[in-house]
Amino acid sequence: VRFFALYVYNQFAMLLRIDTILQRDCCLDRNLPILLGVSGGGDSLCLLDLLHRLGYPLVVAHLDHGIRPESSLDSNTVLKIAGSLGIPAVSQAASAPDYAREHNLSLEESARILRYRFLFEQAAIHAAQAVAVAHNADDQVETLLMHLLRGSGLDGLTGMALRSLPNPWSATIPLVRPLLGIWRHEIDTYCRERHLEPILDRTNLDTRYFRNRLRHELVPELETYIPGVRQRLWRTAGLLSSDRQILDNLTRQAWQAVVLGAGVDFTTFSLTAFSTQPVGLQRRLIRQSVSGLRPEARDIDYALVQRVLDFVECPSHTNQADIGLGLGIFLEGDEFHIKTWDTTLPVDGYPQITEDLVLVLPGEWHLDSGWILSAEIVMDVETARESALANQDGSSLKLSDYMLNRKIPARLRGAWPLLCLDDQVAWVPGHHLAHHFRLTRETKKVLAFQVGLK
Amino acid sequence: VRFFALYVYNQFAMLLRIDTILQRDCCLDRNLPILLGVSGGGDSLCLLDLLHRLGYPLVVAHLDHGIRPESSLDSNTVLKIAGSLGIPAVSQAASAPDYAREHNLSLEESARILRYRFLFEQAAIHAAQAVAVAHNADDQVETLLMHLLRGSGLDGLTGMALRSLPNPWSATIPLVRPLLGIWRHEIDTYCRERHLEPILDRTNLDTRYFRNRLRHELVPELETYIPGVRQRLWRTAGLLSSDRQILDNLTRQAWQAVVLGAGVDFTTFSLTAFSTQPVGLQRRLIRQSVSGLRPEARDIDYALVQRVLDFVECPSHTNQADIGLGLGIFLEGDEFHIKTWDTTLPVDGYPQITEDLVLVLPGEWHLDSGWILSAEIVMDVETARESALANQDGSSLKLSDYMLNRKIPARLRGAWPLLCLDDQVAWVPGHHLAHHFRLTRETKKVLAFQVGLK
Repeated sequence: VRFFALYVYNQFAMLLRIDTILQRDCCLDRNLPILLGVSGGGDSLCLLDLLHRLGYPLVVAHLDHGIRPESSLDSNTVLKIAGSLGIPAVSQAASAPDYAREHNLSLEESARILRYRFLFEQAAIHAAQAVAVAHNADDQVETLLMHLLRGSGLDGLTGMALRSLPNPWSATIPLVRPLLGIWRHEIDTYCRERHLEPILDRTNLDTRYFRNRLRHELVPELETYIPGVRQRLWRTAGLLSSDRQILDNLTRQAWQAVVLGAGVDFTTFSLTAFSTQPVGLQRRLIRQSVSGLRPEARDIDYALVQRVLDFVECPSHTNQADIGLGLGIFLEGDEFHIKTWDTTLPVDGYPQITEDLVLVLPGEWHLDSGWILSAEIVMDVETARESALANQDGSSLKLSDYMLNRKIPARLRGAWPLLCLDDQVAWVPGHHLAHHFRLTRETKKVLAFQVGLK
Repeated sequence: VRFFALYVYNQFAMLLRIDTILQRDCCLDRNLPILLGVSGGGDSLCLLDLLHRLGYPLVVAHLDHGIRPESSLDSNTVLKIAGSLGIPAVSQAASAPDYAREHNLSLEESARILRYRFLFEQAAIHAAQAVAVAHNADDQVETLLMHLLRGSGLDGLTGMALRSLPNPWSATIPLVRPLLGIWRHEIDTYCRERHLEPILDRTNLDTRYFRNRLRHELVPELETYIPGVRQRLWRTAGLLSSDRQILDNLTRQAWQAVVLGAGVDFTTFSLTAFSTQPVGLQRRLIRQSVSGLRPEARDIDYALVQRVLDFVECPSHTNQADIGLGLGIFLEGDEFHIKTWDTTLPVDGYPQITEDLVLVLPGEWHLDSGWILSAEIVMDVETARESALANQDGSSLKLSDYMLNRKIPARLRGAWPLLCLDDQVAWVPGHHLAHHFRLTRETKKVLAFQVGLK
């Protein structure tokens, strides 16, 4: 009788804990379907059982990664389990080994990419409110250690989240991990009590895999240093996660203040605004830019970020540098761009002209991209004389040197409009009048030219 | 000849690196003395040699921790080395084992406390611009791992700093660690090349000490997971350190916004302002409060901070709770206090009176702590009638219940001033007039009482 009481108690305790987590932390609605990734292992069978008992409508999805010869049998087992509970289920076969070869990735990484892609595709098809996966507290600790050993900064050390939105696979469907606070031994007990029969995946025991070595060798060894180190590491992930939220918010604000423009293949920063940010945020802004330009790059190299910081502090004489991943940094006056090497930066912010115009004065002429040149006769010669700025220096300067001095970005110089009289340059729009065309006391008639946006 | 060239190069490379670090990162002045802690091991002899060659005036300080029987010989060796370089040196003997017993601390922790106390005492005596110690890059990695295994949050994972001011031992003398970016093997090479002869400290090999086990067992093992893991962990400490700076700044701002008062034995928080802070900053504010109240507590327990957060979110019915370390949390209206159990909170912000006064009207009377009660005859009875608030309810209420309803903090109720006529309470200052003393249409004469600060 005593044993029976304990048995009931444990199960209900677990149900209550998960129920709270599902509502409070994962923000799930009990009336909308959840797409649940089920490998057939203990973790996913436990989560399937819990969600089903709590009354959430489910769709079970299983991906056969094609790694083990017996894996197609697993699909059948999972479909059968779902069927026995009256839950709709889908399975698909993929080849992680092929994908790994094609994309030069590790087998683990390939399996992960294929699995999440499949789960989110299925979630969209079944109009699921979320994709749920069964990572547990031990997985969380292993993830923290994995990122630590790889030299990740704060972002990796926060581990996984109970709910992530946006995530790398969707901007609208959250990824939830309700078991993140439940230890593997608790799940094992639950499975035994509920007579769930997990599929044994032998690859989980293979210590040639990095994560398995962490699980079976490193974590048990760390426990000999400080007992309870698992719990401490699990808590650390939580502490760092709340720190990260603060920094993520600051990064969003800094992005608004620092980034002047961003496209699929470039980010333009204000150098002055960037330089006033603390270095921790500078690093985050660079990483955000690079991960936008290279969404497939999972870990952004420390060295890449450092190259950008070094360049910004002390630019090379060519004003550009290779930063890796096929990206470059380009300095132009008070702006710098991180962009793919072959990208032409947009020129909308500057006057450009690709064909010669012959002007019949006065009038208005269209340049490129909505820029307009206008000319009108000025009546108030006196005021014009005071406001028109001309070069005071009569000595001549090569046009290319002048443009360099005036910090006109190199890429814009070729198509920068020039106002000419015969073969003499009278005005470089945005800059001074040529000395020869300055307004003197003897000037009687004034034509005012303006270049501006519509 | 080739070998000689390499030999010179290496040494000068090290000198140049350290020279830059001393000026740029440690902010040291070449003309002012540095107090250098020298154990006689390779690290400290290397730093002694480097600082001496770079021309910094030095004072060498050595503490005999009384742990090893031969340690008094070490003192002589260090004094002799300093003497041979013409550098003034002091040594002192202490007993770390005794201190450990007396204060219930580990031997390592005791040695650390005694050493730094001695070094900063000597720095003050010799008017040194800084205390320098010789921690190296490997020490940094070990520190990060040690804090990680202990479950520290971000603050521990940042490792040690090149320069710390304020530090736990001084608010004016910085602690600098110029070798923090130099690896142990580089230091060993330097010592060999410069014919420096370090004292061998056998306790450094004793893997019963936590740090030694990390050094000799864990770090080499981690290298088998990912080669170069040392460098990665070292970089991680740097990345996290720039994140921490940002959070430290935010915490300072939040402290200004949230903390209403702080003494040696209490901190008073605005509950509303505290609740609007992100949880990462809430944790930091609590830790800052607790480490101010308990400066000797080195690691502030995760559970203690969590108890405060839980209490603030959902206070107990007694409005107070034990949070550990002999501290409690107390809720009073929109304020909460973290304080030592036996502390009486200051009452300056509230009117209090410890002796009865008999009032002869009109007049002015001194209450406690600069509060004043005044009474004057009001001429404009009509206006007084409109503004004087009285309890509309004529039913009587026990005074203690009234005070509870009005959220007068319990600790202030006993000495809260009461204006009485014979045995009837007419007014509880700061609150409504008693019903019986309200101003009615028939009121002809009005006495206005005020309680306020000088």
